[in-house]
Amino acid sequence: MTQRQQSPLQAHLYKIIFGTDTPSGKWFDLILIFAILISVGVIIGDSMANIHRDYGALLQRLEWGFTLLFTLEYMLRIWIARNRRAYIFSLYGLIDLLAILPSYLAIMIPQTAPLLIIRLLRVLRVFRVLRLVGYLNDANQIAGVLRSSWRQIFVFFSIVITIIVVFGCLIYVLEGPNNGFENIPVSVYWAIVTVTTVGYGDVVPVTAAGRAISALAMLVGYAIIAVPTGIFTANIIEKRQTKRTPLNCPQCSRAGHEEDARYCRHCGSYLRTDSDEETTT
Amino acid sequence: MTQRQQSPLQAHLYKIIFGTDTPSGKWFDLILIFAILISVGVIIGDSMANIHRDYGALLQRLEWGFTLLFTLEYMLRIWIARNRRAYIFSLYGLIDLLAILPSYLAIMIPQTAPLLIIRLLRVLRVFRVLRLVGYLNDANQIAGVLRSSWRQIFVFFSIVITIIVVFGCLIYVLEGPNNGFENIPVSVYWAIVTVTTVGYGDVVPVTAAGRAISALAMLVGYAIIAVPTGIFTANIIEKRQTKRTPLNCPQCSRAGHEEDARYCRHCGSYLRTDSDEETTT
Amino acid sequence: MTQRQQSPLQAHLYKIIFGTDTPSGKWFDLILIFAILISVGVIIGDSMANIHRDYGALLQRLEWGFTLLFTLEYMLRIWIARNRRAYIFSLYGLIDLLAILPSYLAIMIPQTAPLLIIRLLRVLRVFRVLRLVGYLNDANQIAGVLRSSWRQIFVFFSIVITIIVVFGCLIYVLEGPNNGFENIPVSVYWAIVTVTTVGYGDVVPVTAAGRAISALAMLVGYAIIAVPTGIFTANIIEKRQTKRTPLNCPQCSRAGHEEDARYCRHCGSYLRTDSDEETTT
Amino acid sequence: MTQRQQSPLQAHLYKIIFGTDTPSGKWFDLILIFAILISVGVIIGDSMANIHRDYGALLQRLEWGFTLLFTLEYMLRIWIARNRRAYIFSLYGLIDLLAILPSYLAIMIPQTAPLLIIRLLRVLRVFRVLRLVGYLNDANQIAGVLRSSWRQIFVFFSIVITIIVVFGCLIYVLEGPNNGFENIPVSVYWAIVTVTTVGYGDVVPVTAAGRAISALAMLVGYAIIAVPTGIFTANIIEKRQTKRTPLNCPQCSRAGHEEDARYCRHCGSYLRTDSDEETTT
Repeated sequence: MTQRQQSPLQAHLYKIIFGTDTPSGKWFDLILIFAILISVGVIIGDSMANIHRDYGALLQRLEWGFTLLFTLEYMLRIWIARNRRAYIFSLYGLIDLLAILPSYLAIMIPQTAPLLIIRLLRVLRVFRVLRLVGYLNDANQIAGVLRSSWRQIFVFFSIVITIIVVFGCLIYVLEGPNNGFENIPVSVYWAIVTVTTVGYGDVVPVTAAGRAISALAMLVGYAIIAVPTGIFTANIIEKRQTKRTPLNCPQCSRAGHEEDARYCRHCGSYLRTDSDEETTT
Repeated sequence: MTQRQQSPLQAHLYKIIFGTDTPSGKWFDLILIFAILISVGVIIGDSMANIHRDYGALLQRLEWGFTLLFTLEYMLRIWIARNRRAYIFSLYGLIDLLAILPSYLAIMIPQTAPLLIIRLLRVLRVFRVLRLVGYLNDANQIAGVLRSSWRQIFVFFSIVITIIVVFGCLIYVLEGPNNGFENIPVSVYWAIVTVTTVGYGDVVPVTAAGRAISALAMLVGYAIIAVPTGIFTANIIEKRQTKRTPLNCPQCSRAGHEEDARYCRHCGSYLRTDSDEETTT
Repeated sequence: MTQRQQSPLQAHLYKIIFGTDTPSGKWFDLILIFAILISVGVIIGDSMANIHRDYGALLQRLEWGFTLLFTLEYMLRIWIARNRRAYIFSLYGLIDLLAILPSYLAIMIPQTAPLLIIRLLRVLRVFRVLRLVGYLNDANQIAGVLRSSWRQIFVFFSIVITIIVVFGCLIYVLEGPNNGFENIPVSVYWAIVTVTTVGYGDVVPVTAAGRAISALAMLVGYAIIAVPTGIFTANIIEKRQTKRTPLNCPQCSRAGHEEDARYCRHCGSYLRTDSDEETTT
Repeated sequence: MTQRQQSPLQAHLYKIIFGTDTPSGKWFDLILIFAILISVGVIIGDSMANIHRDYGALLQRLEWGFTLLFTLEYMLRIWIARNRRAYIFSLYGLIDLLAILPSYLAIMIPQTAPLLIIRLLRVLRVFRVLRLVGYLNDANQIAGVLRSSWRQIFVFFSIVITIIVVFGCLIYVLEGPNNGFENIPVSVYWAIVTVTTVGYGDVVPVTAAGRAISALAMLVGYAIIAVPTGIFTANIIEKRQTKRTPLNCPQCSRAGHEEDARYCRHCGSYLRTDSDEETTT
């Protein structure tokens, strides 16, 4: 436990910077999100030739201002965090760090500046501000189902990628290097473009055999999208239907009872007092 | 309440123009829909070079005829509406206004004429005519589920757009301005084309690293379509299942009875008192 | 009722040609499907330049042979049908007619010959031969759910097509006739290509405003595919879950009872005798 | 039964090569998967012009080393298999054979070497190693649902392919051989590219009638993806729901108990006799 004792100033800043319950905490987050969006706008603007020509110097200075601001904020967050290590290695902590790193990196390698866009990820903090109206719950529900579908989706994608590589090699053998399928990596790139039904058309088969194989790849890609959709849909329905009570059995203390359960399904003892019943929704 | 007393003439016209229950009310709507479709056909025809050359003057005059007709109808609707303010600011009222505005705008800016096509939206009134056979219920059910899925879909699209912008910047850094990825907005446009699996092929990666990133973007786009589909499907199923009454049988206390059930299908006992019946919708 | 008395010969041929229960009936269908596939192969082969050059005359003669064969079969079917009018105007009867018409039409308009391919539809008869192993049930189940989803899908497609036309006009105004968006029909074609995520890339926006609108069209198309999928999935689940017994209530004679129902939900009378219960699967 | 008596050496090797329960069995599989991935990397590398120029001879030798290794392993597997015939004709046995065949074939036809990539399929053995954490169950569940959906998906694809061929012929008649639709096979290839929403754009309609037909093909392809998705989703949900025990409570006779339930959650009475418990899988 590296949980430290906070000074009163730290505790006050903590409420503003990390909290979202107080008005000042909410305003801090809203201003932060606004600053992130402007700073992203600056990066995008700077990438456009005519804007860069006319306002390049200004945008450069603005960009450095934002970087200093976010650096300051990052250091402040570390200073006031109750558990510094936990914050630094949390998802938000890492994104906060990534949001400022490319600026310093760009001093040495200038063309990496657009990577700063990664700070856009910070904008997902917006769900925290919207917390009260349930947006965070929705985000968490989606994330929860994705997490519980993770293994099945991993299995599915292992098989899809194996199919894609095999299709890539088949087309490489059938079309040969003369028709744009220069090597297997390019052919696998073509197979991904085809199976995902993106279909750029930058590399296309021209022989009859190649077109037959790519027709098969398209039909496979068109059909198997049903699999992750079906798995995810079934998981989301299942999750909603088996909302469990937070009750533990008073006798065998096992949890995970269904919402309408009155008796423990493991030991048969009565789960709730009559006054509890009304709380079930 | 700005509900006004209607004169007998207004009340009679109201039945024809706003109502769909009387034969004349139905005929009015059908003729209106027919006029909208012809007027849309006129706009489309006028955009084709050879038709414009041969019949341009005629179509122009027809177009003005329809505009005057719809203007007249719009003013009539305002005159006879029971609650004028409510009609003007209702969805249909705004569409009715939008359906005539571009014509007058086109006097000053001629190339905006095709915007008149917005009057096609008025054709969705057709569902009101089809009301009796249940089409409106279906439209309302779809709209209802979309409304209740709104927040989850907002969360999903916030995340998708963040992913798209990050992919756009990555490709911009990897491919550089020489391969068509001129600036970040173009690169983000490419990312949208790729993640939605549209794949025009007007801007495509040519370097190995760019192709690897775009392969990743394709797989992400191909997989995450499962999320809104799963959410919407789960919501539509949930909405239909909760139509079942929450009543438990007073004798055997089993639930899950259909909405119109008066007797328990398991034990045959009477399910509800007569006063309950009216509450069922 | 035009149900006629069949002669013994007609009755015998009926069993072979229309029936699938006898071995000879099954063989007839299998040979017919085989003939259809070969005749389709002939049409496809004849469309290929080198095959047409070398074997054109042979294929032409084969094609006429098949046309005569199918004409003969069609007339035989009419002759032996129990109810001639019913057969002629049934779906299969119309396809049988369509399968031979283009040949005779091609005498006058030679380039319509490939339309003969419509006879491929006859091959769907294959489900009748496979009937015993349940394929027809599956086809009927899919068709049944599609039929019951018809109205909702009609509503959905009305809205999608309205959106597509509006997008088409917006892009026409923004991109103008110089960038390939020659007129509104072409722009609507572009909108369909974009919203369905096909993305040929033959007509693409080049201005910033046009690209912004098309990005929006893509996101709309990417998201709304969830709607028909959700509707169809919910309908198929609903259909399976509420498999109704074919029982009518002995007292109030209403049908549509759920499979596990023992008492009529309308009048409460007992639905079945104990011996019936075992028949529920 | 060709189940043979294994010698102690065979039995020991069997545990290592076929088993995944012992540490050495797990290590064997992990090393094998690693070898497969490297050998696939060698094939991919060898297909790239610059790598082939610089390291071609080395990669060639590596490739032969892997082929000899896998040949040896294959013969070992046959030698130690409890039931040789069963192993040789099992899916894994056939893939193991396919993984070495192309090397020997490539001596005669050198350009078939990339077909060796088929050995990537062996990598799917990885699910066996991951067995303990449930990956294999997930793969089996997906496979199980696909198997039970097989007939419906076959029916669906028969209809889709018929529609595709008909669309192909229509476009061939409408666009003719001048616009790239050289013959019916090419037109059917176009129809597959369009209906699956891949949309390469290498063959596109240019006439108004052709574009109208292809717009229809796109809308059909966009809509009917809902069908396999709906079928698969319904099947996966159905499969999971029937996992619930078919037991009714002996006292209150309510059903729908979870699989591991021993007591009724509604009335608390004991659900099963001890002899029943083992039958639950």
